[in-house]
Amino acid sequence: MAKTKGICALLLRALALAATVVAAIVMVTSHEKSTLFTVTFEAKYSHTPAFKYFLVANIIGAVYSFMVLFLPAESMLWRLVVALDVVITMLLTSGMSAALAIAYVGKKGNTYAGWLPICDQVEKYCQHVGGAIAAGFAGVIIYLLLLLYSIHNVLNPLLV
Amino acid sequence: MAKTKGICALLLRALALAATVVAAIVMVTSHEKSTLFTVTFEAKYSHTPAFKYFLVANIIGAVYSFMVLFLPAESMLWRLVVALDVVITMLLTSGMSAALAIAYVGKKGNTYAGWLPICDQVEKYCQHVGGAIAAGFAGVIIYLLLLLYSIHNVLNPLLV
Repeated sequence: MAKTKGICALLLRALALAATVVAAIVMVTSHEKSTLFTVTFEAKYSHTPAFKYFLVANIIGAVYSFMVLFLPAESMLWRLVVALDVVITMLLTSGMSAALAIAYVGKKGNTYAGWLPICDQVEKYCQHVGGAIAAGFAGVIIYLLLLLYSIHNVLNPLLV
Repeated sequence: MAKTKGICALLLRALALAATVVAAIVMVTSHEKSTLFTVTFEAKYSHTPAFKYFLVANIIGAVYSFMVLFLPAESMLWRLVVALDVVITMLLTSGMSAALAIAYVGKKGNTYAGWLPICDQVEKYCQHVGGAIAAGFAGVIIYLLLLLYSIHNVLNPLLV
């Protein structure tokens, strides 16, 4: 039983690693040049602080997921893992939400503030960013599952 | 010892309630009319989906904090509290990050996307929103502390 539980958590951590790595790679490769009349228009992730933050959050998430996957079973650091999981989950949630908020303005614009949508000009770039955010969202959900799983495992024997 | 711990958690929950209520009230009252030449310009939180999301997240956080504060000690629902704390913390983090990302564009603009800053026109509104985000941030930090505290309390006796 304990072995099945361990394998399940390991699988979730491997999935979290995959999701954060994909999110980071898809975001960092999002780039498009577009010409409107005579003006060349370049869109890339580094033009938007929220996307840079999303990238950094997912790189930290990926490195952390990788380290935990290869943490020896007898390590003292396992004591900290649930607490660090909470912090990493919050970091990933924060990066994903900030990127999504900006991507939404890019897609729909905000007429009150006079911010025009840019996705009609750089459609491929917007799809790329959308893909990165979807992967980031998957990472967040996997970390949430991991946390609920840890809480269930640790708390249930105490409380039931 | 157990009593001191209980009081400490209760205090943190009361602070979380205060922070989320303040964040919601300050956001919902952010409103400014400004006239530039002959054009009247109105800014309010409901013009920005991210700010509406921030408000909803903080209202849910406030209602949850309130309910937990008055949950009877013998209730079966205490089993769910740590898991619900995780979900509420993620919701508050997400709302705060989305609102902050948009507020940053409002303050600094984004020249690449052609989005102009609007805070010069509606300075009072921007300060108001900034205050709401600061209170929201306080709520997030208090919930993080609560979570780390629960993890420390529950896991330490098992692991040490």
